Amino acid sequence: MSESFLNCDWGTTRLRLRAVLAGDAEVAAEHRTLDGVATLAQQYTPHEREARYRTVLSEAVDALAEAAAETVADAPILISGMASSSLGWQELPYARLPLGLDGEGFVWRELAPLETSAGRHRVVLISGARNDTDVMRGEETELLGLASLPEGSPAAGALVIKPGTHSKHLRVEAGRLSDFRTFMTGELFDVLSRHSILQHSVAQNAAGNNDLEALRIGVRLGREMPLAAGLFRVRTRQVLDDTDPAANRAFLSGLLIGNELAYLAREPAMVLVLCATEPAGAAYQTALEELGLAQRLVVIPPSDVELLSARGQAVLLRRVLSRR
Amino acid sequence: MSESFLNCDWGTTRLRLRAVLAGDAEVAAEHRTLDGVATLAQQYTPHEREARYRTVLSEAVDALAEAAAETVADAPILISGMASSSLGWQELPYARLPLGLDGEGFVWRELAPLETSAGRHRVVLISGARNDTDVMRGEETELLGLASLPEGSPAAGALVIKPGTHSKHLRVEAGRLSDFRTFMTGELFDVLSRHSILQHSVAQNAAGNNDLEALRIGVRLGREMPLAAGLFRVRTRQVLDDTDPAANRAFLSGLLIGNELAYLAREPAMVLVLCATEPAGAAYQTALEELGLAQRLVVIPPSDVELLSARGQAVLLRRVLSRR
Repeated sequence: MSESFLNCDWGTTRLRLRAVLAGDAEVAAEHRTLDGVATLAQQYTPHEREARYRTVLSEAVDALAEAAAETVADAPILISGMASSSLGWQELPYARLPLGLDGEGFVWRELAPLETSAGRHRVVLISGARNDTDVMRGEETELLGLASLPEGSPAAGALVIKPGTHSKHLRVEAGRLSDFRTFMTGELFDVLSRHSILQHSVAQNAAGNNDLEALRIGVRLGREMPLAAGLFRVRTRQVLDDTDPAANRAFLSGLLIGNELAYLAREPAMVLVLCATEPAGAAYQTALEELGLAQRLVVIPPSDVELLSARGQAVLLRRVLSRR
Repeated sequence: MSESFLNCDWGTTRLRLRAVLAGDAEVAAEHRTLDGVATLAQQYTPHEREARYRTVLSEAVDALAEAAAETVADAPILISGMASSSLGWQELPYARLPLGLDGEGFVWRELAPLETSAGRHRVVLISGARNDTDVMRGEETELLGLASLPEGSPAAGALVIKPGTHSKHLRVEAGRLSDFRTFMTGELFDVLSRHSILQHSVAQNAAGNNDLEALRIGVRLGREMPLAAGLFRVRTRQVLDDTDPAANRAFLSGLLIGNELAYLAREPAMVLVLCATEPAGAAYQTALEELGLAQRLVVIPPSDVELLSARGQAVLLRRVLSRR
């Protein structure tokens, strides 16, 4: 059968729903809302939770059906991300590493079907993954999508870098996700640029082009200095050198990214796969070059990165339909 | 003459004024207010600045005179800290390194005398210090006070560690302050525990005793991991291990302090001099022990640390009175 499914990426701050043709993961339509898990958690009481999630999802499906009725009709819905967290629709236990790049070992639960104007939809909630000390929800599914790309398959062994509020470094060995680590890089940037003394030294918005030279200087300092010392340099560049706030914003970004990535130069020479959307992609690529890691770097185009969730769920859909 | 003087430590958030007998820096009385430089900067227009500072200082002197009239009468006032910053009473240029532990090279300016109920006071504003990339205002004067202590003299060469919102590491070589570096450790703790996702994983107040074992675990992780990765561990200790928020607060503290101090284990074997008040003193001492640095550690008692500003200004007073 020519399958289609609905790819739901339900994050902390937003919901993304896409109508996908399963064969090549082509997206027929997309609908985004700000009904993230954190937002919903503030709106429902625990006993309203089930109904509230069903209503929000049903409305999103209806909206999507207006744009792609044929693809949406009766299509199963796969959900990954924070919807399986303790704040989400249902809390599912994390899958335990190692996980196969074919979906082996993944954890999901089929919920009661959802009735919408577009028909009756199976609903499959996919859980996240953990190791002894770290957790994620969503990136494990995107990794399956990455492995399904001809140019992106890290099956032979690689470290996959996925920048974000909480950046993930995913270690792939012998065709499996063997380990991962989370870095609070994006959140540090946000919190420090808004709530610390550094708020006076960095522009509050990236106006125009990012200053890549200032970013490179930050990367070098982030590699060399304890982070708390490098951060004060953001201030002294303003006080002593009268540095432009826009350049200092790029410097702060480089400092944090450089501190995140510096350890890679001391690691065994694994292939590095950068999976980023813009503007993080350009910043991380510049940082990896500055750290001397360009030669073992594979950059996934941002347009492909946008589709990793859909591609990953397409892999899991085959398992769901065959009941493992 | 049996000199006395008024030791004014004018910081960002508070003003401390002490009546001091210059000979042995004995404190006859102390008065504290919340008239910090940042507070005053919000209250005055630039052309009110001079008068506003004089009023605030005059009232503090009057209050002090009620407790120690004889010591305060006509005593000169020495001011160090943020009062010489761009937001302060008058902006003075930073002194340039190296600086002598006898006050050689320090920068100060004598302002117009202050008339109070206790007489006529000379007013001497002491500036901070800078190197090519870093600045401080206040700690340079405290270092003079440290050097005047029999047990604390770092003249032979030492790294002086002064924890705080912005921790300072002061390098003393051949009887001079040769270099220093600022770490935003205290501010990171404050901002992250109040404004980041970690706010849900750490107690908002240190209730009762600090959990030194949790702090030690944090120190070890802070030494090993990029800081942004260690920070996410604060969250996963709660999510995966159900760690008590009070223990996690100590863990976060240890993580940040360990990250600040870890480089010292790779430095040449300088003597380390810890100048801290409580509760930072116990935390830093524990961290230095955990990092294997206890053998070259000298700990200055907190009661002595409280007096370093007064002792340092006593050294500078002799220079001021002899007009260098």
